[in-house]
Amino acid sequence: MSTTHNLRVDGARLWSTIMETARFGATPAGGINRLTLSQEDGQVRDWFRDACEAAGLEVRVDALGTQFALRRGRDMTRLPVACGSHLDTQPTGGKFDGILGTLAGLEVMRALNDAGIETEAPLLLVNWTNEEGSRYAPAMMASAAYAGEFTVEDIHSRRDAAGIAVKQALEAIGYLGDEPVGERRIGAFVELHIEQGPILEAEATTIGVVEGGQGIAWFDGVVTGFESHAGTTPMPRRRDALNGFAEIALAVERIAHAHGPTAVATIGEAVIGAPSRNVIPGRIRFTLDVRDPKAETLDAVESELRAELDAIAGRRKLTIELTRIWRKEPVPFDAGVVGAVEAATRGLGFSHRRMVSGAGHDACNIAALAPTAMIFVPCRDGISHNEAESATQGDCTAGADVLLQTLLTLANAPVRAG
Amino acid sequence: MSTTHNLRVDGARLWSTIMETARFGATPAGGINRLTLSQEDGQVRDWFRDACEAAGLEVRVDALGTQFALRRGRDMTRLPVACGSHLDTQPTGGKFDGILGTLAGLEVMRALNDAGIETEAPLLLVNWTNEEGSRYAPAMMASAAYAGEFTVEDIHSRRDAAGIAVKQALEAIGYLGDEPVGERRIGAFVELHIEQGPILEAEATTIGVVEGGQGIAWFDGVVTGFESHAGTTPMPRRRDALNGFAEIALAVERIAHAHGPTAVATIGEAVIGAPSRNVIPGRIRFTLDVRDPKAETLDAVESELRAELDAIAGRRKLTIELTRIWRKEPVPFDAGVVGAVEAATRGLGFSHRRMVSGAGHDACNIAALAPTAMIFVPCRDGISHNEAESATQGDCTAGADVLLQTLLTLANAPVRAG
Repeated sequence: MSTTHNLRVDGARLWSTIMETARFGATPAGGINRLTLSQEDGQVRDWFRDACEAAGLEVRVDALGTQFALRRGRDMTRLPVACGSHLDTQPTGGKFDGILGTLAGLEVMRALNDAGIETEAPLLLVNWTNEEGSRYAPAMMASAAYAGEFTVEDIHSRRDAAGIAVKQALEAIGYLGDEPVGERRIGAFVELHIEQGPILEAEATTIGVVEGGQGIAWFDGVVTGFESHAGTTPMPRRRDALNGFAEIALAVERIAHAHGPTAVATIGEAVIGAPSRNVIPGRIRFTLDVRDPKAETLDAVESELRAELDAIAGRRKLTIELTRIWRKEPVPFDAGVVGAVEAATRGLGFSHRRMVSGAGHDACNIAALAPTAMIFVPCRDGISHNEAESATQGDCTAGADVLLQTLLTLANAPVRAG
Repeated sequence: MSTTHNLRVDGARLWSTIMETARFGATPAGGINRLTLSQEDGQVRDWFRDACEAAGLEVRVDALGTQFALRRGRDMTRLPVACGSHLDTQPTGGKFDGILGTLAGLEVMRALNDAGIETEAPLLLVNWTNEEGSRYAPAMMASAAYAGEFTVEDIHSRRDAAGIAVKQALEAIGYLGDEPVGERRIGAFVELHIEQGPILEAEATTIGVVEGGQGIAWFDGVVTGFESHAGTTPMPRRRDALNGFAEIALAVERIAHAHGPTAVATIGEAVIGAPSRNVIPGRIRFTLDVRDPKAETLDAVESELRAELDAIAGRRKLTIELTRIWRKEPVPFDAGVVGAVEAATRGLGFSHRRMVSGAGHDACNIAALAPTAMIFVPCRDGISHNEAESATQGDCTAGADVLLQTLLTLANAPVRAG
């Protein structure tokens, strides 16, 4: 044990690997345009396969194109301890989202090879297909199918905007693999990722020990008042849908604050029907996104908001409709794996905090199958899904070191009585 | 005098005239689509000319197509006392906006003919070209040029969306007249119109004695915050442009109320930049329309609002820009003509109130040249610029009777020392 406690990744090699693969789909502004199953995605997959094989890993591809690279362990009867993330990007994505977690996994394998270390359980590195969801819906498609949420036939038949089905796209780049989706079992899963939020940077904290994924509720709303002339309708006689909506926006904000620091609520879209400079808006449609790590908080935000909407509608003689169109329950990660991440972080001496993932990740799907946790590192200004996305070499190295130590702990732990 | 005090218009004839001309550009939904200088506008102009000539009026057309129909008076050295409005409509306009005032003027002439009454000063009935502004900007184009705000050459060169210039359109329907614009002088102007607002109907009042036109200030605003991830950005760290805008909307409403009952302020358009359901809005553009009969109130609303914007921007770390793009000063009508309208109304026994016009009218332009006032009658639900626009025969008749008595008073009044 003492020898592996001192083991570190090669941060410079990890960084140069990130920069090397950034050429597949590189944009002039320094980002990456590497939509899932595109030619560029095919190129980075080929590169990844070759690099894994060069590191002695055995690479297989499943029927949804997900790449699995196995590093043998001393006890091949044990389920592999897995890590990884994704190599696809948004159309104007950055160099770190998904890529850090995947290539840090590769760096872990290389570092173990360099040190000549064999783990008890095998290790597995995964590149999940279509985490981003930009070309094909839904996002996190392959890990969801892996976890049994969708059938492979369903996912194969999904089409992009050009009408190309997932199965065709897989064939076109040579990644319609023969391994049945979900057949490969894993013992645990650890995903390293940039935070995609501002908290770690703001608190000058290096590592986020991620305890789970937030629950999400999506709503569509409509406020209906009465469209009338801006010049001839006295203020007290108005039924202004926009001003009613303004009260709703501030109520949403106030309620989310009251359930802080965890709850967040966002109106991302709002559109006036038949807008005109000199007409009082009679109708406005809006969207609402509410998130919290606890299902009870999602419930409370919704019921408090509905009470506010009734009050606003009554006071302003408006009709306000709010429809919940989707809800994803919170995903708690495994206490044991979270504890292993935290212990590894402490062992390495990094500043850290426990937190919840605000965004969705493949790990949130895998958590339904196997003990799972995530490791977050800071990204500049919390910016992600943007060519300006940035993380420091030091933080990337720190995250990879935590990943390395966590995998060693999990893979070398005594087998628990089953 | 006593004979003319008992004179009334023929309300049934006025109503059937309104319904007769409603066939020019009639829409299936019961409205009128009669854009200025269209073929349909040409048809109603021809009908109007013929009807005026049949009533013994002398019809001339100026270089912007405005029709002037003169009824001779006993003293032709006196300037004519004028009335009228417009016969063009919005693309989905109603049967009363502008039309009532023009055809009520015709009915007044017919009623005087029937009674064999000759006035001291001549009377003049006007059909102004392009009051609506739907096909050619600006609205109230011909009366503004008549008042000297634009040159005829400027207006002639304005083009519609199809590229057709005003001069071409006038020639196409035979209404490029030979009378120089503004040459014809008038002694007074009285315009009867539907209110286009809800006040008279709500108060069950028959006649609005209009003291002036409101001042109008138009603004464009931009709120800039920071676009970020709806799931990963904690509430206290957000710089949400939409929530800042919501505070602005409520501040606008509060300030207008505080300057009530006259002031009105409306945000008619608001557009989020790059809206997405799970992205905190980083930018929102909006328009603002502020109106009040007093210039000082427009000033006060603007300065109070700017102070609020500064406070909101500071508190929320947003940038808020507000640019005044247009301002039209209030137009006070002539106390003498307003008094004549009020006296005529009282003499007829109609319920009435003094009020200010919320919308713009040709009378607001003419007020710069000659003593002017307006007469309002109720319209159903305050709806206008809409095929559902409606007024009762009784109210139309009442408005025409007030117009008749007002014109008689003004045209028969002793000449004031000049």
